[in-house]
Amino acid sequence: MKFCSSCGSTVTFHIPEGDNRDRFVCSDNNCGVIHYENPRIITGCLPTYQDKVLLCKRAIEPRYGLWTIPAGFMENGETTEQGALRESWEEAYANLKIDKLYALYNLPHINQVYFIYKAELLDTSFKSSSESLEVALFSEEDIPWEELAFTVVEKTLKRYFDDHKKQNFPLHMEDLDRAVRPGSVR
Amino acid sequence: MKFCSSCGSTVTFHIPEGDNRDRFVCSDNNCGVIHYENPRIITGCLPTYQDKVLLCKRAIEPRYGLWTIPAGFMENGETTEQGALRESWEEAYANLKIDKLYALYNLPHINQVYFIYKAELLDTSFKSSSESLEVALFSEEDIPWEELAFTVVEKTLKRYFDDHKKQNFPLHMEDLDRAVRPGSVR
Repeated sequence: MKFCSSCGSTVTFHIPEGDNRDRFVCSDNNCGVIHYENPRIITGCLPTYQDKVLLCKRAIEPRYGLWTIPAGFMENGETTEQGALRESWEEAYANLKIDKLYALYNLPHINQVYFIYKAELLDTSFKSSSESLEVALFSEEDIPWEELAFTVVEKTLKRYFDDHKKQNFPLHMEDLDRAVRPGSVR
Repeated sequence: MKFCSSCGSTVTFHIPEGDNRDRFVCSDNNCGVIHYENPRIITGCLPTYQDKVLLCKRAIEPRYGLWTIPAGFMENGETTEQGALRESWEEAYANLKIDKLYALYNLPHINQVYFIYKAELLDTSFKSSSESLEVALFSEEDIPWEELAFTVVEKTLKRYFDDHKKQNFPLHMEDLDRAVRPGSVR
């Protein structure tokens, strides 16, 4: 960030009065807006169908050509569930019924929080999209483990197949924090 | 948003190519950055001590002078738990041990998602701060129901005292699609 989005002046990076961490602050005294930056939510579904799960082969960067579950940035004006269903439609034209919140991941090194819902695929009319080169159902033995796009996808799939054997699907919560910044905790 | 934070040019508000909703887009062809806006996470604790809960009387707007649980915007570089503990320290100097994730609320009308952790107060050395005029423990019959700052606080407290009678504290999830004034949801 170099310029103030309110007035167009330059910004400086410092701790504002009464605050305790560096922020981008407008250098114009008449404006002086503080531009806060906060983590973003990734919301998505783990679509299940009989003993299989639906995966999408990414048609966009990052991780072009690798497999993922349908998920993406939560948008303003929607709930986490609505966002998960929207992303599943945009990436795979998947008709889903959400079963439950299945996984929450904190990724503080990239300022993201993941919401993953376990969801039932209502039919097999899914198809590829502008965001997915290919969309397909996989049973556990067919999962392309070496070609998964993200760690959270791998972790979620492993947990799902374990839980599926027990027919018990608790909410999984995990922090994947490789780089917590000094000062971020009291 | 009026100006591009990358180059200082003006922005326009339209649907970028390949997208499906309006975004702020830099009008300079050499820059052209799309400025996404996404929901923010509020993270906090419900601090418990014996049969009481800790509340803070707000020293800042909005809802100056009304009572709340310690909570605030999640910061970059931290987890939701770390943010909840940080806010509890900043608002009440509360020494807490997190017990469990207790409530998740979607507030799509204001682009917020709340994480509230049930947490045990380890001692009674809490005190007021620059963000709280007063910090105190309340038993159920003493809660200032008519002076609570936010609907999510009221909902969480009601659930907590109900759950406390049963000694069973499941994760509560709810979508609140509009602001409800304290008192009107009881």
